[in-house]
Formats: sequence, structure tokens, C-alpha cells
Amino acid sequence: MTEPAAPHCAADHLCIPEDARKRARHRLSIARGHLESIVKMLDKDDAYCVDVLRQIKAVQGALNGAADVVLRGHLETHVATAHERGDTVELVDELLEALRYR
Amino acid sequence: MTEPAAPHCAADHLCIPEDARKRARHRLSIARGHLESIVKMLDKDDAYCVDVLRQIKAVQGALNGAADVVLRGHLETHVATAHERGDTVELVDELLEALRYR
Amino acid sequence: MTEPAAPHCAADHLCIPEDARKRARHRLSIARGHLESIVKMLDKDDAYCVDVLRQIKAVQGALNGAADVVLRGHLETHVATAHERGDTVELVDELLEALRYR
Amino acid sequence: MTEPAAPHCAADHLCIPEDARKRARHRLSIARGHLESIVKMLDKDDAYCVDVLRQIKAVQGALNGAADVVLRGHLETHVATAHERGDTVELVDELLEALRYR
Repeated sequence: MTEPAAPHCAADHLCIPEDARKRARHRLSIARGHLESIVKMLDKDDAYCVDVLRQIKAVQGALNGAADVVLRGHLETHVATAHERGDTVELVDELLEALRYR
Repeated sequence: MTEPAAPHCAADHLCIPEDARKRARHRLSIARGHLESIVKMLDKDDAYCVDVLRQIKAVQGALNGAADVVLRGHLETHVATAHERGDTVELVDELLEALRYR
Repeated sequence: MTEPAAPHCAADHLCIPEDARKRARHRLSIARGHLESIVKMLDKDDAYCVDVLRQIKAVQGALNGAADVVLRGHLETHVATAHERGDTVELVDELLEALRYR
Repeated sequence: MTEPAAPHCAADHLCIPEDARKRARHRLSIARGHLESIVKMLDKDDAYCVDVLRQIKAVQGALNGAADVVLRGHLETHVATAHERGDTVELVDELLEALRYR
């Protein structure tokens, strides 16, 4: 199995892998459209509370899916190579902070 | 303390209270704008994974806030009056289903 | 359909319904046993991180199940009758606080 | 800064780092004691629903804390060295699976 590459797109900066970036962007665009439709649903005064809660939950699920794509890209390209670069502790600290209360 | 009213906007239908509807709509509009900015962030190839994860988490927090507004409205106007109407079990079943894995 | 009763076991106090109490107690006992087995797993120095994470997740699922039993009992017996008693706002405030970040 | 070591305690197996193992064990022991006290609380028929929900949430928080200790140890010792060992994809797959719905 070929190991994923670890691109550094700038001297001081780790960039999101191209594929993960495009897939996350696509998923977030869909979530945005879904969210737009909930806002419209709330323009009408006959919206039902539980329907709104269900729709919000669906958007949360879509956001979790997008976050998983980004997290996978980050783990595979940046965290998996951290020992070689020598920035393990910094990377793990910031990642755990970003995942908290997820 | 005055008890909240329990509006029924249609014969067969419980409607989200006006105030909760407007506040939830406002919060969701802001979340949509935030989500739009993450999509734009992902148009650039130098986005950083952990920044994207943090932004997604912030939108999730905003969605939770909007859901809390709707949930409060639902509990105060519909669930709190369920025993009087006689639909307690139905309302609680559908609410628990909507909250699951929240 | 018969509406659930709303027992008040003391003048100033709403009590958890008997059935919910026993079922929640049973589920929490099982979760405690599961947690005990994870502690034992961690006594051995060849435990694997991801196995531990999976087991902790399973216990979290069991706790969610127990919380759902208690929440259902609370909604059916106490929240659904709040408008009649006149304590809707207090009950909903404390419930939302207890559910936050669930 | 010294990079964390990457111990392999058996030929075919990655072990939880000693320090993370002991700290996670300690936290889980405390959570077990807390859970035990909730079970006892439910032996009495005057337990109040929202108190039980709050206590369960506190145990969930303690379990999240223990999971964070294990996750940090796993990321620092196993995931950060995955590219060198050549098992990045396998490790990331199983980790994402274990984190899902966390």
C-alpha cells in the first residue's frame, strides 16, 4: 500500500490535501443549501417545532460528515508524518482542542 | 408568573410559537452566512485542516443554539400542555426521536 | 389512550416515576459493570488504545439509553402536566440546562 | 522538544502508552464510583429526574476526559509514527470509526 503524501504548501504552513478540500467543500455546499431551506421553512408561521428540530439534526449530520473528511485528510497527511517532522505534540494539542465537545 | 399560551394554528397541527420562530430564523441565517464563509475558505488551496474543523464546530454550536430556541418553544407551548390535550405519549415519542444522537 | 399519571411524592418535590426509575437503575447497573471491565482491561499493559476508545463509546451509549428512560419519564409525567400546575417556565429552564452539551 | 517514543509491546500489536494507561484507568475508576452513586440514588423512590440527568451528564463528561487521555496517547505514539511504519490508512480508518458519533 502506498502511503499518502504529506504536502506542505508553504514553508510555515500545512495545507489541507486537495482531494479532502474539494470533497469537504462539496458537502458543506449541500449543507448550506439545506440550511437555506430551513430558514425559508421558518418564514412561514405554520412551521412545526419537531420538523425544524429534525431538519437541524440532518444539517448537523452533514457537517459531521464534512468534518470527518477534513479530519481524515489531516490525520493521513499531517498527523501521520508528525514524528518525522518533529511537531507531534503541537499538532496533537491543537487537534484535541478542535475536537473537544464535537 | 403567567403560563405561556398554547397556540394551535390549525385544527390538526401545533405551530412553532411566533417568538421562537423569529429567533430561530435569525440564528439560522447567521449560521448560514458562517457556513458560506467556510465554503469560500475551501476555495483556496492554502486552507488549513484544523482551522476548517474549528469553523465547522462553531457553526455546529450556532445550530445547537437555534435548536435550543425551538426546543424551548416546543416544551413550553406544546409539551407542557399535552396532558390537557391528551396527546402526551405521541408528543414525547416524536420529541425523543428528534433529540436522539443530538 | 390513557394519559400517564403525574405523581408528586412530596409536597415540594416531583419524583421520578417508579417504572422509569427501575429501568434506568437496571441500565446504569449494566453500564457500571461494563465500566468495571474497562478498568480491568487497563490493568494490563497490552491494552490497545482503539479498543479502549470503542469500549468507552459503548458505555456512553448505555448511559445515553438510561438518560433517555429518565427523560421520557420526566417529559410524560412532569413536563406534560406543567401548564396545569403552573411551573412550566421553571421546569423547562432546568431541563434545557440539564440537556445542554448532552 | 523530544518527540514521544512509539512503543510496540508485541510484534503484531500497538500498546497504549504506560502514562496514558494509568491516567485513563484512574479517571475511569472515579467515573465508576460516580456511576455507583447514581445507581444508589435510584434505589430511593424520591429521586428527581433532572438530578439523575445531571449526574449522568457528569459521568459522561468524566468518560470523555478519559477518552481524551487515550486518544492523545494514541495520536502521539501510534498515529504520529504511522507514515514511518507504513500503516497510516489502516490506523486512520479504525480511529475514525471509533470516534464516530462520539
